[in-house]
Amino acid sequence: MSVRTIVNVRERVMARNDDFAGTVRGRLTAARIPSLNLLSSPGAGKTALLEATLQRVGDTVRIAILTGDVQTQNDADRLAKHTDRLVQAVVTGGACHLDASQVLDGLEAVPLDDTDLLIVENVGNLVCPSHWDLGEDAKVVVMSTTEGEDKPLKYPAAFQRASVVVLNKVDLLPYVPYDAELAIHNALSVNPALQVFRTSARTGEGLDDWCAFLASLVAAVRASAPV
Amino acid sequence: MSVRTIVNVRERVMARNDDFAGTVRGRLTAARIPSLNLLSSPGAGKTALLEATLQRVGDTVRIAILTGDVQTQNDADRLAKHTDRLVQAVVTGGACHLDASQVLDGLEAVPLDDTDLLIVENVGNLVCPSHWDLGEDAKVVVMSTTEGEDKPLKYPAAFQRASVVVLNKVDLLPYVPYDAELAIHNALSVNPALQVFRTSARTGEGLDDWCAFLASLVAAVRASAPV
Repeated sequence: MSVRTIVNVRERVMARNDDFAGTVRGRLTAARIPSLNLLSSPGAGKTALLEATLQRVGDTVRIAILTGDVQTQNDADRLAKHTDRLVQAVVTGGACHLDASQVLDGLEAVPLDDTDLLIVENVGNLVCPSHWDLGEDAKVVVMSTTEGEDKPLKYPAAFQRASVVVLNKVDLLPYVPYDAELAIHNALSVNPALQVFRTSARTGEGLDDWCAFLASLVAAVRASAPV
Repeated sequence: MSVRTIVNVRERVMARNDDFAGTVRGRLTAARIPSLNLLSSPGAGKTALLEATLQRVGDTVRIAILTGDVQTQNDADRLAKHTDRLVQAVVTGGACHLDASQVLDGLEAVPLDDTDLLIVENVGNLVCPSHWDLGEDAKVVVMSTTEGEDKPLKYPAAFQRASVVVLNKVDLLPYVPYDAELAIHNALSVNPALQVFRTSARTGEGLDDWCAFLASLVAAVRASAPV
């Protein structure tokens, strides 16, 4: 088995994923639903951020969530406590990322007419998910004040392909040797176009801005609606 | 390209890795050097734990380190400040784990006659690295009090294949909503044989026990030496 053969297989798999991603994107565009793909390392607080988001926006932004996990449905169970709307668990059974075919399957369960925004919570992993287009409008990387400030430099692909970075757990800044400005500087050095939010899912700090951003995505799509 | 073909390619790649791992294991066994493979999510504190370990053990345990990273040599640079001994950076260039051929290459630079213990710091990732044998004696999973307590349930492969779990950042327990007993209970439910350490690389709490464990690995190999 040559290296060339292995590369070819990978290219074929990625091409098939991109086909599925195109179908996802087409359906969401037709339904006028903006979509985000949340990436982070395990434990940065994607699920906690979404829990706090659901509590805060209620039904003002009708969010459907597809949440990926390697093995459990824990995140989906956590999120379902905060909303009557769809929280769809996608268990990858070992894979380190969601792929677009899984999102397309998950989308079957989403009531598109009754949804303002789709958020895909990817598997907690800063490497693999960044290479897989899920058909989303934008990737969001969640980083945390308990990680190293150099995460954007060490995992540049995720940050390069993202449009938004959320620095979560800012409530812990007094207790951790973390330089938030340096971390954000590093993120912007990898991708100067990143929109930056600073949040604490625990205390609520910064969530107004984050939720206003989500609402603005929905408003932008509605503003562009055919009359 | 059938699913079957893709599976076959994966099997061939893994089989080749296992051959390299066998070579690594043979060399280390011949040189009587015990070895650990450290896994964790990004930001759990593998590098900080190793920095504190190097400071503490000095030359009482002569540690060689191979540190893997997707893109930078930051971790190797950090570690090299705390030791005159070998810290070998292995940049995977995008891959989410080290493989045994990279460890075998890295081993070329290790002065085996002058080394008591080899520690491989894997890429920060709780999924991919758990499936790749690097020729190590034991895997160590580092988890952190800033992650969810359910990480062992969500990433069982890493914990199942590990012999040791280190709960790091215990200094943050007063400030985070983290139930350490629940997290350790979850880890042991996945793998009852896990040896558990609780550490703070920052304050030094628990490092005596951790360093004593490392020394015991070296002592055990020496005790088994042919006279």
